[in-house]
Amino acid sequence: MEYVISEKVKTLKPSAIREIFKYAADPSVVSLSAGNPAPEAFPVKEIEKISADILATEPVAALQYSVTEGYPLLRKKVWDYMQSKYSVGSDDDDILITSGAQQVMDLFTKTVCNEGDTVICEAPSFIGSLNSFRSYNCRLCGIPVESDGMNIEALENALKNEKNVRFIYIIANFQNPSGITTSFEKRKAIYELAKKYSVMILEDNPYGELRISGEDVPCIKSLDTDGIVMYAGSFSKVLSPGMRIGFAIGPKTVLQKMIVCKQGEDVHTNSWAQMVAYRFMNEYDYEAHLRKLREIYRKKADFCMELLDTYLVPNGITYEKIQGGLFIWCSLPENSRISMGEFCKQAVLNKVCVVPGNAFLTNEEEQSRAFRINFSTPTDEQLEKGIKILGRLASELI
Amino acid sequence: MEYVISEKVKTLKPSAIREIFKYAADPSVVSLSAGNPAPEAFPVKEIEKISADILATEPVAALQYSVTEGYPLLRKKVWDYMQSKYSVGSDDDDILITSGAQQVMDLFTKTVCNEGDTVICEAPSFIGSLNSFRSYNCRLCGIPVESDGMNIEALENALKNEKNVRFIYIIANFQNPSGITTSFEKRKAIYELAKKYSVMILEDNPYGELRISGEDVPCIKSLDTDGIVMYAGSFSKVLSPGMRIGFAIGPKTVLQKMIVCKQGEDVHTNSWAQMVAYRFMNEYDYEAHLRKLREIYRKKADFCMELLDTYLVPNGITYEKIQGGLFIWCSLPENSRISMGEFCKQAVLNKVCVVPGNAFLTNEEEQSRAFRINFSTPTDEQLEKGIKILGRLASELI
Repeated sequence: MEYVISEKVKTLKPSAIREIFKYAADPSVVSLSAGNPAPEAFPVKEIEKISADILATEPVAALQYSVTEGYPLLRKKVWDYMQSKYSVGSDDDDILITSGAQQVMDLFTKTVCNEGDTVICEAPSFIGSLNSFRSYNCRLCGIPVESDGMNIEALENALKNEKNVRFIYIIANFQNPSGITTSFEKRKAIYELAKKYSVMILEDNPYGELRISGEDVPCIKSLDTDGIVMYAGSFSKVLSPGMRIGFAIGPKTVLQKMIVCKQGEDVHTNSWAQMVAYRFMNEYDYEAHLRKLREIYRKKADFCMELLDTYLVPNGITYEKIQGGLFIWCSLPENSRISMGEFCKQAVLNKVCVVPGNAFLTNEEEQSRAFRINFSTPTDEQLEKGIKILGRLASELI
Repeated sequence: MEYVISEKVKTLKPSAIREIFKYAADPSVVSLSAGNPAPEAFPVKEIEKISADILATEPVAALQYSVTEGYPLLRKKVWDYMQSKYSVGSDDDDILITSGAQQVMDLFTKTVCNEGDTVICEAPSFIGSLNSFRSYNCRLCGIPVESDGMNIEALENALKNEKNVRFIYIIANFQNPSGITTSFEKRKAIYELAKKYSVMILEDNPYGELRISGEDVPCIKSLDTDGIVMYAGSFSKVLSPGMRIGFAIGPKTVLQKMIVCKQGEDVHTNSWAQMVAYRFMNEYDYEAHLRKLREIYRKKADFCMELLDTYLVPNGITYEKIQGGLFIWCSLPENSRISMGEFCKQAVLNKVCVVPGNAFLTNEEEQSRAFRINFSTPTDEQLEKGIKILGRLASELI
């Protein structure tokens, strides 16, 4: 049989990171390529206790069909939390619990984009989201990221010149992969431009709670007096990614359609996970938990940056200091003898996996001098071993 | 802001059943409109024990990111089970664990259909799947269902005359909503026609394990020597729908693309649920569990059919006897004074909810004389009370 594959799906490729995972599965390889939260950050004992209690006292609620919008107690809890802590959510907004924040990208794109419509995103940006946009045959237009966020002039040019722009996709805090945080000035500028050109903003904030230094910058959604921002939140980095719980807060008109799409996609999100998340937020000291997480990641990030300063920087590799998140973006010098692609390949051959920067571009064929390092998944020993190897390679090859 | 909603999503409506749920939420209303498994069918104690053990002994596996294809042990377990028990799955096939079987409909449609392509389905058919097809802007072509399955002549006419038919969607066992089981002869005929016209078959089998009388009929997928059938299986009716676990078994070429789509949709299915399902199948007597389920549903179905024979049939309402599943399809007589829509409305006003038959048609504007009754969710008392009221209405209004 000659299978017909739809135009939108035909050219989709598995994420390059996934392909790298195949090497990373070799236990002798140090993987700095993942994006997993540190396992020690999971509140295992609490989840164990809550889960046992749920299955003992209200098993039918955890095991039966539920409503597409999400577990009502969790919806209310998250809504109140986001309102009081981050001023996210207005009277014109509503909240939908999703199967991970990834599903927000999927449902939102499906709801607002026709095939061929344009999505503006940061360049580089999160490959999972880019693939989600691609899977609806959206055109991607990447805006170069500077150390305080998107280049605003390039953004306005794109808004002016690109056809059928539907939304701007942005990870404003500790962006994946660049680690960059968009400044408050740029957040306001991006909001004003979106308003001026009547396009929406999809604000993805998976790492916002993981700030390790500096002051919180208000979410773009908190500026949203015009109903143009869809906010995507996630429990993956603060509770557990395996539970697959995220949420969307945005204009009711759009969210209602996303709910209908979700009904046809997976009916509703796993009930047990939603109940566990609710009770964890409700019965435990959530702020203390977040402080503990930040402490874990602060230590890991500081240790990683120390290693980079010791082993990579003297050999010509530069990186952007981060204030949070899970990733550090390293760049080969302009005059490097070896290309970034070849450097990453040599790293794999020497048993260290990093993600080549072009994987995060809207056009993967473009050149990149950067690669992404993750410091949350490896142990300190692995991190040290891996970065030492990268340092040796840099000294020999760059 | 004037929101742009994509062409494919613009006309999507929430399922009519969902709207009826709003009435059904009133505790004084007897709901015969749901499709929930009987809560007493959940193996609560076993799930409680397995879950406690998982969270005590391998919490990180349950809480961390996992692979998109699904938990390897569950994939293998389900694969072996489907092969040995139902001859489903060949060397050219592979298996993907999904977030409920609903996601199989979504991923398969996304993968093989361009906007405007045609999907052939039974008329009536499951509204959740129809909405999933609609959400990719597919045209639906309904083939009338007879007591042994689709009208084969109408099917061939459609295959001959409809443009860009991509697949035939069929629930061959105890179809939702009609309760009908497609005969082996018709299964073979449908397979041969699909082959002749080079279209695929999407075989959805959520109720296959819930046979209460008669002999199992081989799955269409078990006939699939040509790699043209995508099989959708579900744990919702045999373990728990709130866990949201289903699976797809089908040709690798198509399944690989579905996996890439799933990556962009929800990354992977809830890990805890996949581990619980695996261990339940592996550590408990699964066949004994299924026998227990069938006993529960046999009792409920027999009781329901007795009530229908006593209260509805004498008042002119006919129904199709079922051999399994959760639904019974009732029809008003041709010469009824009251329309089916009006009858369902009167039922609601008298505190009984059923689902009007036109909700399951490819064109909801079409007339239908039928309505769907579910017997798995209500208690025996509720069932008796509800059907007595329907009987009284029938005697007064038909």
